[in-house]
Amino acid sequence: MTDLVTVGEATLRLSPPRGERIETAGTFDAHVGGPESNVAVATATLGLDAAWLSKLPDTALGRRVIGDLRRHGVRTGVVWTDTGRVSTSFVDRGGPTDSTDVSDREDAAITTTTPDDLPMGAVRDAKTLFVSGATPARSETLLETTETLLDVAGEADTTRAFDTRYDATGLAPATARELYDRLLDRVDVLIIDEADAQAVFDLDSDVVQAGHSLRTRYDCATVVITRRRWEQPTIGLQGEEIYEVPAFETALRDPAGVHDAFVGGFLSGRLRGDDVKEALTEGVATAALKRTIVGDTVVGSRADVAAIRDGRN
Amino acid sequence: MTDLVTVGEATLRLSPPRGERIETAGTFDAHVGGPESNVAVATATLGLDAAWLSKLPDTALGRRVIGDLRRHGVRTGVVWTDTGRVSTSFVDRGGPTDSTDVSDREDAAITTTTPDDLPMGAVRDAKTLFVSGATPARSETLLETTETLLDVAGEADTTRAFDTRYDATGLAPATARELYDRLLDRVDVLIIDEADAQAVFDLDSDVVQAGHSLRTRYDCATVVITRRRWEQPTIGLQGEEIYEVPAFETALRDPAGVHDAFVGGFLSGRLRGDDVKEALTEGVATAALKRTIVGDTVVGSRADVAAIRDGRN
Amino acid sequence: MTDLVTVGEATLRLSPPRGERIETAGTFDAHVGGPESNVAVATATLGLDAAWLSKLPDTALGRRVIGDLRRHGVRTGVVWTDTGRVSTSFVDRGGPTDSTDVSDREDAAITTTTPDDLPMGAVRDAKTLFVSGATPARSETLLETTETLLDVAGEADTTRAFDTRYDATGLAPATARELYDRLLDRVDVLIIDEADAQAVFDLDSDVVQAGHSLRTRYDCATVVITRRRWEQPTIGLQGEEIYEVPAFETALRDPAGVHDAFVGGFLSGRLRGDDVKEALTEGVATAALKRTIVGDTVVGSRADVAAIRDGRN
Amino acid sequence: MTDLVTVGEATLRLSPPRGERIETAGTFDAHVGGPESNVAVATATLGLDAAWLSKLPDTALGRRVIGDLRRHGVRTGVVWTDTGRVSTSFVDRGGPTDSTDVSDREDAAITTTTPDDLPMGAVRDAKTLFVSGATPARSETLLETTETLLDVAGEADTTRAFDTRYDATGLAPATARELYDRLLDRVDVLIIDEADAQAVFDLDSDVVQAGHSLRTRYDCATVVITRRRWEQPTIGLQGEEIYEVPAFETALRDPAGVHDAFVGGFLSGRLRGDDVKEALTEGVATAALKRTIVGDTVVGSRADVAAIRDGRN
Amino acid sequence: MTDLVTVGEATLRLSPPRGERIETAGTFDAHVGGPESNVAVATATLGLDAAWLSKLPDTALGRRVIGDLRRHGVRTGVVWTDTGRVSTSFVDRGGPTDSTDVSDREDAAITTTTPDDLPMGAVRDAKTLFVSGATPARSETLLETTETLLDVAGEADTTRAFDTRYDATGLAPATARELYDRLLDRVDVLIIDEADAQAVFDLDSDVVQAGHSLRTRYDCATVVITRRRWEQPTIGLQGEEIYEVPAFETALRDPAGVHDAFVGGFLSGRLRGDDVKEALTEGVATAALKRTIVGDTVVGSRADVAAIRDGRN
Amino acid sequence: MTDLVTVGEATLRLSPPRGERIETAGTFDAHVGGPESNVAVATATLGLDAAWLSKLPDTALGRRVIGDLRRHGVRTGVVWTDTGRVSTSFVDRGGPTDSTDVSDREDAAITTTTPDDLPMGAVRDAKTLFVSGATPARSETLLETTETLLDVAGEADTTRAFDTRYDATGLAPATARELYDRLLDRVDVLIIDEADAQAVFDLDSDVVQAGHSLRTRYDCATVVITRRRWEQPTIGLQGEEIYEVPAFETALRDPAGVHDAFVGGFLSGRLRGDDVKEALTEGVATAALKRTIVGDTVVGSRADVAAIRDGRN
Repeated sequence: MTDLVTVGEATLRLSPPRGERIETAGTFDAHVGGPESNVAVATATLGLDAAWLSKLPDTALGRRVIGDLRRHGVRTGVVWTDTGRVSTSFVDRGGPTDSTDVSDREDAAITTTTPDDLPMGAVRDAKTLFVSGATPARSETLLETTETLLDVAGEADTTRAFDTRYDATGLAPATARELYDRLLDRVDVLIIDEADAQAVFDLDSDVVQAGHSLRTRYDCATVVITRRRWEQPTIGLQGEEIYEVPAFETALRDPAGVHDAFVGGFLSGRLRGDDVKEALTEGVATAALKRTIVGDTVVGSRADVAAIRDGRN
Repeated sequence: MTDLVTVGEATLRLSPPRGERIETAGTFDAHVGGPESNVAVATATLGLDAAWLSKLPDTALGRRVIGDLRRHGVRTGVVWTDTGRVSTSFVDRGGPTDSTDVSDREDAAITTTTPDDLPMGAVRDAKTLFVSGATPARSETLLETTETLLDVAGEADTTRAFDTRYDATGLAPATARELYDRLLDRVDVLIIDEADAQAVFDLDSDVVQAGHSLRTRYDCATVVITRRRWEQPTIGLQGEEIYEVPAFETALRDPAGVHDAFVGGFLSGRLRGDDVKEALTEGVATAALKRTIVGDTVVGSRADVAAIRDGRN
Repeated sequence: MTDLVTVGEATLRLSPPRGERIETAGTFDAHVGGPESNVAVATATLGLDAAWLSKLPDTALGRRVIGDLRRHGVRTGVVWTDTGRVSTSFVDRGGPTDSTDVSDREDAAITTTTPDDLPMGAVRDAKTLFVSGATPARSETLLETTETLLDVAGEADTTRAFDTRYDATGLAPATARELYDRLLDRVDVLIIDEADAQAVFDLDSDVVQAGHSLRTRYDCATVVITRRRWEQPTIGLQGEEIYEVPAFETALRDPAGVHDAFVGGFLSGRLRGDDVKEALTEGVATAALKRTIVGDTVVGSRADVAAIRDGRN
Repeated sequence: MTDLVTVGEATLRLSPPRGERIETAGTFDAHVGGPESNVAVATATLGLDAAWLSKLPDTALGRRVIGDLRRHGVRTGVVWTDTGRVSTSFVDRGGPTDSTDVSDREDAAITTTTPDDLPMGAVRDAKTLFVSGATPARSETLLETTETLLDVAGEADTTRAFDTRYDATGLAPATARELYDRLLDRVDVLIIDEADAQAVFDLDSDVVQAGHSLRTRYDCATVVITRRRWEQPTIGLQGEEIYEVPAFETALRDPAGVHDAFVGGFLSGRLRGDDVKEALTEGVATAALKRTIVGDTVVGSRADVAAIRDGRN
Repeated sequence: MTDLVTVGEATLRLSPPRGERIETAGTFDAHVGGPESNVAVATATLGLDAAWLSKLPDTALGRRVIGDLRRHGVRTGVVWTDTGRVSTSFVDRGGPTDSTDVSDREDAAITTTTPDDLPMGAVRDAKTLFVSGATPARSETLLETTETLLDVAGEADTTRAFDTRYDATGLAPATARELYDRLLDRVDVLIIDEADAQAVFDLDSDVVQAGHSLRTRYDCATVVITRRRWEQPTIGLQGEEIYEVPAFETALRDPAGVHDAFVGGFLSGRLRGDDVKEALTEGVATAALKRTIVGDTVVGSRADVAAIRDGRN
Repeated sequence: MTDLVTVGEATLRLSPPRGERIETAGTFDAHVGGPESNVAVATATLGLDAAWLSKLPDTALGRRVIGDLRRHGVRTGVVWTDTGRVSTSFVDRGGPTDSTDVSDREDAAITTTTPDDLPMGAVRDAKTLFVSGATPARSETLLETTETLLDVAGEADTTRAFDTRYDATGLAPATARELYDRLLDRVDVLIIDEADAQAVFDLDSDVVQAGHSLRTRYDCATVVITRRRWEQPTIGLQGEEIYEVPAFETALRDPAGVHDAFVGGFLSGRLRGDDVKEALTEGVATAALKRTIVGDTVVGSRADVAAIRDGRN
């Protein structure tokens, strides 16, 4: 039985060596990233059985993407297609010039994914399904497919986890709000960044208050709120309980994928039977490890995360 | 006064280090290439005044492209736009696995270029205008723009040079034939590869015969035929004269852009007042230098070409 | 159902950049190689379902090895252990200084592998089992385990393929002969290099004669003889039929793993239902592709092999 | 009409990869730097029309230098010569071992530059002329040429900007003082570092006081004083007005060229019509961007500078 | 006359580029390190005559090790052998993921070194002999050889310096304590880290107290205690005198070998006639330089150390 | 007792990665080369005791040069100076564009070397002294110093070997001829390339004839003539005996230093007691190994050379 199934897009991200810029770089380092694939990698790195479902063109680039995820131990279920592209993105990594990001995501193969493309049995058999807001925001087809995924999971008692990832949707706040409204009633575990809560849901007062508001509105069992600044504690709400877990201090080498590493760590904890507070701790420790690694995904082992979590690092 | 004006698209070409493949490469070398930009670089490298006109998105990638050409001494006239992409291509370089080439050219900024986007004065003031078949094949808009360019050049007594580059059009033979039929009557110097003559014009017998046939059909002053295999002599026809110039032997490090280097060398010779045979020799020597260099364009100086041409290498 | 199951060791091979030597290299490129893992990668690259079974230490190096194979699409069944090492080898790649190879294989985790460590069900369920002589030569334990593997496969009607790979055994000819004598009666498909036939079996006359002799002695359904020199045809014997398949010409960038790529290609052909001659052709085309790639394994797709096989390259 | 004309030397600077030292480095990264070329690059990066005039040997190294500047969009006016060298410098970048700098600047081609070598029309047509103390300090010939340049600019109402850059002169304080005394009366905009003011002009009390003193002595319209430490505000004096502009906080990846980036930003602001305070802000924002980039020059666009200036970074 | 003779093992240490991890790195940087070789390099870098004695296999890897040390100016006296390995270690460098270190040191050639293998005349002629606890901990043979070395040095009035380096012994505290008890009576200068004093000798109260205790117990002329944290002062005890020398602040690029650089600097100071306090200062300045350099050894010159020591950096 | 003492200059040679050119390279590989240092490295690599005497500036670059030679096992005797430079050279490596070489050798520290700078005892104690024509051609001072070196060696019965290396002198033929006339009477073993014999001595007929002519004119015991083309046999003359030794076929990766590797191999053979023919064979085998290695010097061991010589490679 699969622990975690994720469905989404992975982008080939090309970065100049540190300290150079896109304008003058003669070489680019290639990494594969995406909210759902990053979460799957984190979960597999922590020793669980994670799968990623997607649609890719049958080209060397498509194979490049899938090989990268397999390398991290993620099982992959991919529909190969002759139409559509692999999304690419040129991005500076690390430091104050991170603003440059030339994304090239039009006509990606993923945008035409229908429920028939996906092995729904894998969703039914999984303990948890994870999707981020980036996936349904890619196309109306994908939005409908996401609705079906959540419905199928719901019927099969597969836990449904959803991360708003508003920054990755490319949508205006009102449009994003509509999208979330169509989906969040079907979600068990909602993860949302403080910034998303403010931008999309106008919840800019207290983050705990915001969490309660969201939990009530969409009737989610659990709400997790990540924070703008690393130093601030991550918040978890379940029933009437509120948990606050502070960050671990590590050197920041690459901010890419740190949020997703948290999500992967948190879901892994829950899958192993941790309570919400323990799972939040596993999440922030996984995120702390990711910060020290260049690329979009966490690399290493559960022991590395434990070393940070147990203060041995 | 500009010696050569070219109009076309330049692609960011990303290649794995030699001996690796796209599927597993962790880094990609970046080079900028395109028929017209390659020809402009060769001409500038040989010491003439060359310009490249195009349309690019106002992003770091757009600046990456233009900076690369400027570095080689090409003057650039670019319309910056907020829509459209920089074309990219993932390509293996050198050796028998060259077949892999994942191109990504949809929705490129260049495809919407109208005559109003281009500084027609620069075309009128140039001694020679160069366009390849790759440019008009990109969109109906660009085909019409190419017609206008050739007309403007014709009125201004600017020599009109055209390279079929059928392999870069992505068109079916019949469609390409129609495209060439709309343009070639307006051309003074026609450059065509032996393979194009066969595929598009069914001229698969003798190449000299093929050249005469094309010269007559489109009433071009000069026809140049490049060959499938490096060892075969390049053919030039002018009036009733036929010239055959054999290749120079050099090590092949990267086949990309060798044909374009020939064109740049040939046009440079003509611009300096060489007769057709001398210009063909300049062309094959420039191509021979390019073969030894990794990337899409020839790098060095007129002295390097002369060293090959005069057998000192 | 798995198409191919292989059991063996994979070594982390560290190579100076081309043209440098171990004595002065400041960096080393890392590749993972081994007869059985190379064959599994080739088979997976050709689109079949291939698995590799082994024993590895639970360290970052062990994860490095398994991640590399997974990247190529090989499924892995690994027993993690706290004792024993990952074998390493420092090796020059390409050209006349290839002789330098500092191997470091003592006390590798693999040497203690018993049948209980391996999922025998996977062997029973596979269509073909592949082992090379390098595996049983590692330790008496592994020799006995190999006997058990072949017996289990025999009982389950899993085709048993064996490659002598005498060069990888590190044994004296007489010792190797004894080892092969203990195993080859249980083998259906025997692959042997011309040099092995001479060194171990004193069969230095005609290679076809040598093949017949081996086929008779060990009662193998099929015998394949690879050759010392690339230009010579590979030989296949089945029943009274003799097949000779010439090599495809490609540039040699790295000789490592070329023989194993042939084996993977040949077995893939057989698994798809090719007759022996077709399968030999698939093998030499796969080997020809490998020659152009730096590293121990073939990278790409079945289309790349087909391009070489069908002369389109 | 050119916005900014600069005249000076550019050095090929070779640096070990970060964390290695000259003694053991097997490769060196190459960057082109010089006070005047760095200022020209910053100005061009900010979207203005900047030119650099110099004298270079007609070698591959000379072409290396000019190609680098053209890549950044700087127009170049270079006299090619058969005598003299390209200056080189081996330099560690970043961190506490920056002290190592093996310069090799004897017999550089630039040292023989006379007014006849330079296109004086370009100076007359420019809005601003910029030279640093490094240029006249290279030779008596260059000192006289600098006097002529300032005189020509003065007659043509071209604004004359001068940066003392005492650290780049290699002169003793008294000799430098004499050199400045010969030039500064002809300068409109004087830029001087706090350290120079102390070492050469004995103005070690209050920096504002020092600025007033220099403004009065040389009758400059504007005096700008940069600071020893990044945290301290940059000072500008114009008439009786005093402006203080604090630095923007960014990560320091390479201190090379940060001062020159400030100068380019400040002059760009003035050329666009900014008042002194706004131009100082543009300068410190440009310098803040440069700090994050490895190499001698700022890379990016005006939008990147604006992002820092407007606090969006 | 040799200033310093050291006897020990050097390991080939392979590290992923900064920000990558062993699991995914495609290349590894190679450095040579070991307590005694690091000390010898630091001493040679500071301009003294240092030698390193060891036993290595006669392979390209063995030559790799010795060439690296010679490059730094260390004289080498090596017994070449056909048995035994070069120790290797895969290690992450810099930052919070430093915990990963896959060492592979079994059956190293060094472990069989007997007194007959070593040129004892070199020990007698040297001013100082240096060994760390890592050497005798490698094998009983090496422990006995170390005893002989210390005895020979004692008879020849060669100063005997010893660094506990408990972290490099791989021993349990009690076993290490026995080992130290067999050796330390023969030692003149004892260097010990605060952490070793606590773990092995249960001296966890005041470090000065710990130093006195050790000095009395083993009757050493000088005891030096290095600290857990960089900010804390290093302690020296000689007779009744106590010296405390604070660290110099430099950027930390690689913590490897910083302790050994201190030892080399301290011993160099003593060899030049510095008093204990001056020598401690030379030590912490040398360590401060090492921190900025990637690799196991300090690179540069005595002037670089002086620049840090004299506050000019 | 030293086997071989050489006196000369070593240049820091900076090369773009293969396939790039100086004009566009972003990084340069650094190698140290020079006729005498290359010969010393080859001799040390072959297991003999070789020393290199020179004069270098006391900078990081000077240390870079000496560290490189020490790494190869060459002992160095260097006078450190505060004046003069390290010679540098920017050079393309491999293939048809090798012609580009931007040398920068003015004012090198070596040019002021007097006999007092050199440890003449080392020359007297050596079995063989080697100098090439490149050294005396650097300055009149060095010419006189070379005369003294040869005289001192002659008095001490040290064999005097001299390689004309006309290509490295930078002199006109007549000037070179005068220089050689001042030195060659004092030489025992003369090594000269066929091209030098023709250019300087007008000996363009038969190479054996040329050898006899030179041997007679300068009364050398042995004359060795290397050839323009690799395929041609190297010629040795001693007394009336003539020896011709054909080349070994290896892949050419870098032609730099191949001639010097031959000289080192030949002199090593003679030092070990080989007759002229055996020594010539050692020379061409050493040269054949060098061809496969990027850089100026041969790397490896005597076993690598033997593998080529004995046809095992």
